[in-house]
Amino acid sequence: MLRALELAARGPATGANPQVGCVILSPGGEIIAEGWHRGLGTPHAEVDALSSLAPDGARGATAVVTLEPCNHHGRTGPCSEALIAAGVARVVYAVGDPNPVARGGADRLRDAGVEVIAGVEVERVEELMHPWLTAMRRGVPWVTLKWASSLDGRAAAADGTSQWITGEAARARVHLQRAAADAIMVGTGTVLADDPSLTARDTRGGLLPSQPIPVVIGDRELPATAQIFHHPQPLIAMHGHDLHAVLSGLFARGIRRVLLEGGPTLASAFIAEGLVDEYLLYLAPILLGGGNLATADLGVGTLTSARRLTIVQFERVGEDILVRARPREEG
Amino acid sequence: MLRALELAARGPATGANPQVGCVILSPGGEIIAEGWHRGLGTPHAEVDALSSLAPDGARGATAVVTLEPCNHHGRTGPCSEALIAAGVARVVYAVGDPNPVARGGADRLRDAGVEVIAGVEVERVEELMHPWLTAMRRGVPWVTLKWASSLDGRAAAADGTSQWITGEAARARVHLQRAAADAIMVGTGTVLADDPSLTARDTRGGLLPSQPIPVVIGDRELPATAQIFHHPQPLIAMHGHDLHAVLSGLFARGIRRVLLEGGPTLASAFIAEGLVDEYLLYLAPILLGGGNLATADLGVGTLTSARRLTIVQFERVGEDILVRARPREEG
Ligand SMILES: NC(=O)c1ccc[n+]([C@@H]2O[C@H](COP(=O)([O-])OP(=O)(O)OC[C@H]3O[C@@H](n4cnc5c(N)ncnc54)[C@H](OP(=O)(O)O)[C@@H]3O)[C@@H](O)[C@H]2O)c1
Ligand SMILES: NC(=O)c1ccc[n+]([C@@H]2O[C@H](COP(=O)([O-])OP(=O)(O)OC[C@H]3O[C@@H](n4cnc5c(N)ncnc54)[C@H](OP(=O)(O)O)[C@@H]3O)[C@@H](O)[C@H]2O)c1
Repeated sequence: MLRALELAARGPATGANPQVGCVILSPGGEIIAEGWHRGLGTPHAEVDALSSLAPDGARGATAVVTLEPCNHHGRTGPCSEALIAAGVARVVYAVGDPNPVARGGADRLRDAGVEVIAGVEVERVEELMHPWLTAMRRGVPWVTLKWASSLDGRAAAADGTSQWITGEAARARVHLQRAAADAIMVGTGTVLADDPSLTARDTRGGLLPSQPIPVVIGDRELPATAQIFHHPQPLIAMHGHDLHAVLSGLFARGIRRVLLEGGPTLASAFIAEGLVDEYLLYLAPILLGGGNLATADLGVGTLTSARRLTIVQFERVGEDILVRARPREEG
Repeated sequence: MLRALELAARGPATGANPQVGCVILSPGGEIIAEGWHRGLGTPHAEVDALSSLAPDGARGATAVVTLEPCNHHGRTGPCSEALIAAGVARVVYAVGDPNPVARGGADRLRDAGVEVIAGVEVERVEELMHPWLTAMRRGVPWVTLKWASSLDGRAAAADGTSQWITGEAARARVHLQRAAADAIMVGTGTVLADDPSLTARDTRGGLLPSQPIPVVIGDRELPATAQIFHHPQPLIAMHGHDLHAVLSGLFARGIRRVLLEGGPTLASAFIAEGLVDEYLLYLAPILLGGGNLATADLGVGTLTSARRLTIVQFERVGEDILVRARPREEG
């Protein structure tokens, strides 16, 4: 299973489909095939692995997969059928499929007389797939909120200047985090103030291979000259302030991971509604004072109702500090 | 010299006098005596070391001292004279005495025919004595500003509640930092809002052996019932808002290290006037939003005039983050 997990991690972390890996073992326990999913429209991991074997090569074999084999006719046939047809004797998997339309693979396999063992190495596999699994289970994308502020919590100086609060290393890191998201979201306020390009770029300004879809939320009209219209992915502009509707709409378009890059108004609305799954806070070693705050009102009246976080990562990135945190689970 | 430095560190870090250590070596290079300074009114390190030798024991010896031997008749006689009288042949020291009235020990020793070698291991000794040396060189105490805030830079929730933003481990650490200061300073605003005791306490609430002098700045009258009047050290209440005058006044009273514990108004005034030597920022893993900011206006108009800091320490203390930083030296 750990080998299958390694294979899974080779696939793209973005996109509507999960990272899945598969190893096929001979009846004697030797690895005879490996496969992984390379993203939407390409074969699932099981089919990818089977494809490297002769038609009879998997007879009596064991398939080890990170995710329960799917059971639906999508762009590719159901993996459960492919495994049955190949004569696989046993299927071992970690995590059940959270996708309501794909679910049922394990039952289908058992009905066909295949031995099925579920729940192997669940924790490690869940770790890799956590954002995707969370998104699938609730039908709403995983939301990562990123902001850059001074140590005293300012997102900009008194005159509104905010480029650049953080240093080069932190900005390079953010571009990689953009490339790992399906969509990058801001409010109209940020477009009107900063005219950002919202692309994922390398340190020389070139576009990275994976580009998040730009999403702008709000009713104000965007100037036709906005850089965002030159993004390699077509812009999704969503009107209204109903953030639940926004997120469901993005999920319906296959978006599983959203990187929310502000500004303070939109970010605070997401925090206040409890819609942030992860925070990436870049704290620059500067003090700014003044009124341009990284957060506005969060609906926190008194200290005991503070939004409590658990810090999951904490490091220096260049001169800056990166704090990665998640909402604390109450308990 | 490294042994002398170890001895120096045994002395109290607080008080008007520096931490100084002394080692006496026989003409053959063996350690025959050690001494250190235990604080105001006790023998200086050199005299402490000599006192453990027979009257003739130091003849022809080498004295290794972290700080240039003093040359003035204070509460104790000048160390230069004591070393000459003991027949010491050579004196090796790290840092020159920054105290204008004590200075001149090296010259006095040379005049008496003692070989003097200065500047040995200066960097390490300066590191230990940095706050004291800085205070002495400019005649103004070393100012450490401490605050506790949420990750979004709030010092209190919307209703003013701020006890406790940080966890137990961070609060315990602050008490040790209080014990290492000569004075602990707040504005009248903090006394009126929080009625703090400003004592240094252990985790069970007992008083630590070393207590900073409480200092309150501002014109408003303090209620006679304020806890601060029960502090083991008598309160220094200073009127007016001239922070330079405040600091000179404290220096004149023998205070070398001030821990500034807020609130936001006084802290921001210190930052804006460039009077903070070191920051201890405790960042709690919470978000608060709202208007109770850790800093007010700092006189920073635009990003390029931000108060830039160099982070010198950065660690988790319990659940919280401690960032220790100093103003960046421009260059
Ligand atoms: N330091 C950083 O990390 C960072 C990041 C981004 C931006 N910024 C700075 O932030 C400033 C822009 O701030 P901003 O707060 O105006 O920008 P914003 O948060 O990007 O945009 C605010 C707009 O979002 C729309 N919106 C959609 N749903 C909403 C909801 N539920 N609640 C509230 N608003 C909703 C509204 O647009 P409509 O009014 O059009 O309906 C609102 O005016 C700029 O100065 C920029 O430099 C800093
Ligand atoms: N999170 C933390 O680390 C922390 C620490 C301490 C306090 N707090 C919170 O801070 C709040 C109190 O805030 P605060 O800002 O009113 O308290 P403050 O900064 O302690 O006191 C402000 C007062 O300082 C005096 N002052 C002296 N010199 C000044 C100068 N150069 N500039 C401006 N003021 C000067 C003025 O007193 P006069 O008006 O009397 O002349 C002024 O009103 C409380 O809610 C407390 O809980 C938080």
